[in-house]
Amino acid sequence: MRGLILLEGPNLFSAAASAGLRFETILATEDDFDTHQRAGRLGQRVTLVSDRVLSAAADADHPRSPVASAVAPEESVPRPANTVILVGLSDPGNAGTIIRTAAAFGWDVARTPNTVDLWGPKTLRAGAGAHFSTGIWSVPDIATLGDTHTVIATLPRPHVVSPPMPGPYALLVGNEAHGLDTEVVTEAHAVLSIPMAGDAESLNAAVAAGVAMYILDQ
Amino acid sequence: MRGLILLEGPNLFSAAASAGLRFETILATEDDFDTHQRAGRLGQRVTLVSDRVLSAAADADHPRSPVASAVAPEESVPRPANTVILVGLSDPGNAGTIIRTAAAFGWDVARTPNTVDLWGPKTLRAGAGAHFSTGIWSVPDIATLGDTHTVIATLPRPHVVSPPMPGPYALLVGNEAHGLDTEVVTEAHAVLSIPMAGDAESLNAAVAAGVAMYILDQ
Repeated sequence: MRGLILLEGPNLFSAAASAGLRFETILATEDDFDTHQRAGRLGQRVTLVSDRVLSAAADADHPRSPVASAVAPEESVPRPANTVILVGLSDPGNAGTIIRTAAAFGWDVARTPNTVDLWGPKTLRAGAGAHFSTGIWSVPDIATLGDTHTVIATLPRPHVVSPPMPGPYALLVGNEAHGLDTEVVTEAHAVLSIPMAGDAESLNAAVAAGVAMYILDQ
Repeated sequence: MRGLILLEGPNLFSAAASAGLRFETILATEDDFDTHQRAGRLGQRVTLVSDRVLSAAADADHPRSPVASAVAPEESVPRPANTVILVGLSDPGNAGTIIRTAAAFGWDVARTPNTVDLWGPKTLRAGAGAHFSTGIWSVPDIATLGDTHTVIATLPRPHVVSPPMPGPYALLVGNEAHGLDTEVVTEAHAVLSIPMAGDAESLNAAVAAGVAMYILDQ
């Protein structure tokens, strides 16, 4: 069952159009010449709306034209490539930012069933179009990842540094408040901790994932 | 002129209390025992409120008790320590996330006059208490930074890698949409670009700042 996704603003719309998505609805204001032109080239109809209607149709507080809906792309097939595994992440902004970073670093992104929807409007906005340029797939069970990937758990403490291991990596990133469960950590081949200045400090989940991907790419 | 700041939720309240801030108002729900206890120890009065009043007083959509106001701490004095310079950043969530990362990595944070307020409620929430454990100061003019710091411009392209230079660093991070102005880049001693997989890709400002701080710390 593939639902509809909401594409808000010129950058997301343009990324989705370049990826070949077919739009169900395109709402645009009269002065949004780029969208009228682009939709014309694609042979797709645009519904002219006021700023007020655009706002009502959008999830963002201050949307920019256009606001479009499209059928979500097919989920990618799991593959033995470097992949960030979102394990119970709850913040759509963090999830989208991680998808954006993964695309920039050439990584895939996968989610466990208890992770926020990766195709919701906030996640798409934070992804800034990267949803359409990287593999996004689902992990029903973390235990099976070990067959194809070197599984690495991102933990804030202690500063245990595991010896270098060959990829492809499955980098586990946990929930913003609770981190990774102990049962999940025991499935990992190695642990990665980002050195921090003080014991009370912590990193935002998307920043931690970004730095960890950078470290594993070196 | 030091204004009042809004502290929402137990973690921010606790970080502010540990930093010795005096609260002007503390609103807490009846079942928030931790806050009642903590305020009692501090000799500060708590106003008992309903969930509805707590929500009305808070900036967050779903605030957790307590919601408190306090006089903003004095701004830190500029010092020759590694510092992220926010140059025209407009997103309070990004600014707060960068403050959180800077505190974790032992860096200061400074802002130019055209950067979002670092003490607004969204920035404080994203900072997760780090505002009270790191130096936060103002940069009236980037040209003067070169007297005390090695000034490094973070740029998405090209992948120019400058030779290693001694710190302390002033790491310039630009606006989310427009990056750093050319005039600002000419003030820098060196350029740091984070390698990316494709030319169309980009990083979120807070993730770019986090990876750049990590690189300079190595």
